[in-house]
Amino acid sequence: MASAPEFDFIDRHFLPLAGPGALFLSDDAAVMTPPPGRELVLAADAVVSGVHFLPDDPADTVGEKLLGVNLSDLAAMGAMPLGYLLTVSAPASLGDHWFAGFAAGLKHAQERFGLSLLGGDTTGTPGPLCLSLTILGHVAPGRALRRNGARPGDAIWVTGTIGDAALGLMCLQNGLPDPTGFLVDRYRRPQPRLGLVLDGIASAAIDVSDGLVQDLGHLCRRSGVAAEIAAERVPASPAARAAGTDLLERRLTGGDDYELLLAVPPDREEALLAESVRAGIAVTRIGVFRSGPPDVTLRDASGAPLRFARGGWSHF
Amino acid sequence: MASAPEFDFIDRHFLPLAGPGALFLSDDAAVMTPPPGRELVLAADAVVSGVHFLPDDPADTVGEKLLGVNLSDLAAMGAMPLGYLLTVSAPASLGDHWFAGFAAGLKHAQERFGLSLLGGDTTGTPGPLCLSLTILGHVAPGRALRRNGARPGDAIWVTGTIGDAALGLMCLQNGLPDPTGFLVDRYRRPQPRLGLVLDGIASAAIDVSDGLVQDLGHLCRRSGVAAEIAAERVPASPAARAAGTDLLERRLTGGDDYELLLAVPPDREEALLAESVRAGIAVTRIGVFRSGPPDVTLRDASGAPLRFARGGWSHF
Repeated sequence: MASAPEFDFIDRHFLPLAGPGALFLSDDAAVMTPPPGRELVLAADAVVSGVHFLPDDPADTVGEKLLGVNLSDLAAMGAMPLGYLLTVSAPASLGDHWFAGFAAGLKHAQERFGLSLLGGDTTGTPGPLCLSLTILGHVAPGRALRRNGARPGDAIWVTGTIGDAALGLMCLQNGLPDPTGFLVDRYRRPQPRLGLVLDGIASAAIDVSDGLVQDLGHLCRRSGVAAEIAAERVPASPAARAAGTDLLERRLTGGDDYELLLAVPPDREEALLAESVRAGIAVTRIGVFRSGPPDVTLRDASGAPLRFARGGWSHF
Repeated sequence: MASAPEFDFIDRHFLPLAGPGALFLSDDAAVMTPPPGRELVLAADAVVSGVHFLPDDPADTVGEKLLGVNLSDLAAMGAMPLGYLLTVSAPASLGDHWFAGFAAGLKHAQERFGLSLLGGDTTGTPGPLCLSLTILGHVAPGRALRRNGARPGDAIWVTGTIGDAALGLMCLQNGLPDPTGFLVDRYRRPQPRLGLVLDGIASAAIDVSDGLVQDLGHLCRRSGVAAEIAAERVPASPAARAAGTDLLERRLTGGDDYELLLAVPPDREEALLAESVRAGIAVTRIGVFRSGPPDVTLRDASGAPLRFARGGWSHF
């Protein structure tokens, strides 16, 4: 659907992101040879200004986050990235400068994770900026990590630290102090955990996008198991600890972590720890799956159940 | 990014559209085995309410058109459809009834053309409905039709009739009469020309989405050739002829035809006509490519050059 000014715009900002199969972004479609003997893994996410990011978030962080959250979907499936397609529906008020920053953020993420732009579309909208990204990855046949493989007795592990992004949003919106800028950075530039090789280690995985409790609930529902977590074991960053202990609920139910939540059978925990060291990505055991209805139980340090005011759709 | 009400919404409207690799739309990503020995063909288009379709267009036609315009991109590349991913950013005012109609339109198109939904995302927006669709198809290696293959001496052919959709939009917006409803239907429900097998016949192809003159200009620019067309040979439907002869410019520069524009070497024209009969899709020879700068020249019945007030970026 490209018209002449649109061609110039695409050449200026997006052509430098394009890989060989993109055909210079000037044909009706891209062409790509999938790696022989591999399965494709495909995900799509849409983000809207004012809903998924703040209108004054720096443009490069919007690009980096958009690609990052889709890369996180691949990480949760144990897949390696291949390429992506992008559609941009932008208000006329958004100038060239913004798109130069946006493309720089995409470029940063794609160079780090080894993928390129395959194609897309650019349109106008009278509404807020609306971005949609479809990502392609690949995995050995039958080896994609799923949400439905957790079994009673498997341990619950998470990568990195939980709740930083939710606190980062509080810093931006509610004036929570963030002296080092760490929390805001975690909100704006999530780091997909693609480095961990989880094949043969995890029995199920999901990425934490809606909040730890909600996403653990999704995994329980798909696997038909219950989950118990020890709230004080959920890893907190130094910045999150400094922000205050009264923020536990926010940390465990806020979104945008883009860490991985894993189910790991007891005899695979040593392998997970070795892989964590190899990849340089910290992992922490926070609980266990049990048989029972797909509920999430949080316990405090004394073992007593904790109740939160909000927790998504899950029961407690 | 799905929360609980979103799961119900997805199960109700989109799960019936999903194929096996979609994993019930409940994992982080879809998994698909590409056909062995084939290349993937990928395209993405975004449409916005009030920009690409009218806010009161029936919901099923919005779904059918969204999938149709993406299928048309595959047709222009000579590819066969495999599946699609869809992101929906919708205002809260858009109710369940609308989405039931939208899904019915998608279902109609996907059943006709043999593909299914692989995945996607649903979000809210304070702005107008914004839809993005990524389509996957496949083609024999190295056989994708491109825009850059037209050579001087190749004839210019189009499928179907040109300008109906642009007149259909005039019926909806400016009160142009449409006694049979044919023109409006052509605007709302474009028919992708996937039935024609063009491998070994066409040297280049593009689908007519921006308007015949503009898209022919794109093809000239990519192929490095000039084009001459005989305006009176551009096929008009009976409804378009009945609407008036003063609408020639609108028909030839309006968009949304989603017919194919082909470059065909002289010794392949017999094969094209035979394929047209086999597929039941009419084709018409409207001009010829010549050597020279990438311009489009329109001629009237006397052979004199025609000039239009608007013609996209092309020179005349």
